[in-house]
Amino acid sequence: MLLCDIGNTSYHFLDGERDYKKDVDTFDASSIVEKVYYICVNSEVNAVLESLNNWIDISLFIDKSQYYKTMGIDRIVAVEALSDAVIVDAGSAITVDVVKNSHFLGGFIYPGVEAMQKTYINISPALDYSFNFDLDLDIMPKNSQDAISYGFLKTLYSEVIRHKLLVVLTGGNAKELQKIFKDAKVDERLIFNGMKQIIKKAKLC
Amino acid sequence: MLLCDIGNTSYHFLDGERDYKKDVDTFDASSIVEKVYYICVNSEVNAVLESLNNWIDISLFIDKSQYYKTMGIDRIVAVEALSDAVIVDAGSAITVDVVKNSHFLGGFIYPGVEAMQKTYINISPALDYSFNFDLDLDIMPKNSQDAISYGFLKTLYSEVIRHKLLVVLTGGNAKELQKIFKDAKVDERLIFNGMKQIIKKAKLC
Repeated sequence: MLLCDIGNTSYHFLDGERDYKKDVDTFDASSIVEKVYYICVNSEVNAVLESLNNWIDISLFIDKSQYYKTMGIDRIVAVEALSDAVIVDAGSAITVDVVKNSHFLGGFIYPGVEAMQKTYINISPALDYSFNFDLDLDIMPKNSQDAISYGFLKTLYSEVIRHKLLVVLTGGNAKELQKIFKDAKVDERLIFNGMKQIIKKAKLC
Repeated sequence: MLLCDIGNTSYHFLDGERDYKKDVDTFDASSIVEKVYYICVNSEVNAVLESLNNWIDISLFIDKSQYYKTMGIDRIVAVEALSDAVIVDAGSAITVDVVKNSHFLGGFIYPGVEAMQKTYINISPALDYSFNFDLDLDIMPKNSQDAISYGFLKTLYSEVIRHKLLVVLTGGNAKELQKIFKDAKVDERLIFNGMKQIIKKAKLC
């Protein structure tokens, strides 16, 4: 079974146990002849895929009644994959979604690592430090690097752990964030696992 | 007594009860003949003021042993003004400093309202919403505007109130933040009050 999670910049494929990425600007989706089960947040790519019969949009098989209209399909699929967790998907944005007894309680959007780094540099060149992910969150900072690292990470941490649920990290910066969320589980294939569950439930294959 | 708090963009004067601002790029500091007690985070302006005998840099009269070298003098003066508080100074950055029994415990730097707004827009045009300061912080969001507002405001809130101290808001966005920090005290003259205390303690006038 070939799965594909399409974002703003790349097609992310899972073929059995092997995953690989293709650039949205250069990859030709019609070059694939086998069946592909996909989700897509990129509206331009979506328009292309709708015309290809072997590309199957699994978002059509999700009951979306508990979600909201502008919520990204990747967030929805991640929530569908778990019954009790705070899901932290750390990419260009960090989305945080809370699911309890398989019920979606809501979620929020926080800037991603790279976006936040740029934000501090734009405020002042004096804040041009990389984040310290080895920061001790129990100590209030007394230097500039830790002051911005704490501003970015501890605020997020305080809000996430407040829910007293298992924290599941996914997305490109999951491993960096695990240094802060020490009890969290990293699941880089959370979205693919969610997709598989939806496919199984809808008896698509 | 004439006081002046100089930032990256303006001279902020307090003359008795009246306060006013002058642009750092156009204001001629030598046009003032009376004594001015000042603090300044702008290194270019600082170099000019050092040559003017009637401009008195009150940062020289503060015991800085409990602070750190790159900490802004405006943050230090605000901490000097209070004995037990979390000081939230909301300008281009939001600085958060904790003082307990007149002892500085440390602080962090979070992006300001305008900077964070730009950050979300740069991540995705789909996040181009103004922040909702009337957000109910007890409810997890289920729409995009609240999802970014919560990401910006609730994370900050959760960390600030954790200290269980009086929250004092100052800076240009203090009143907006008061909608979130409902029990906070707004003190737009906190830095001037801190300056007055330092002048009194050092017997400068």
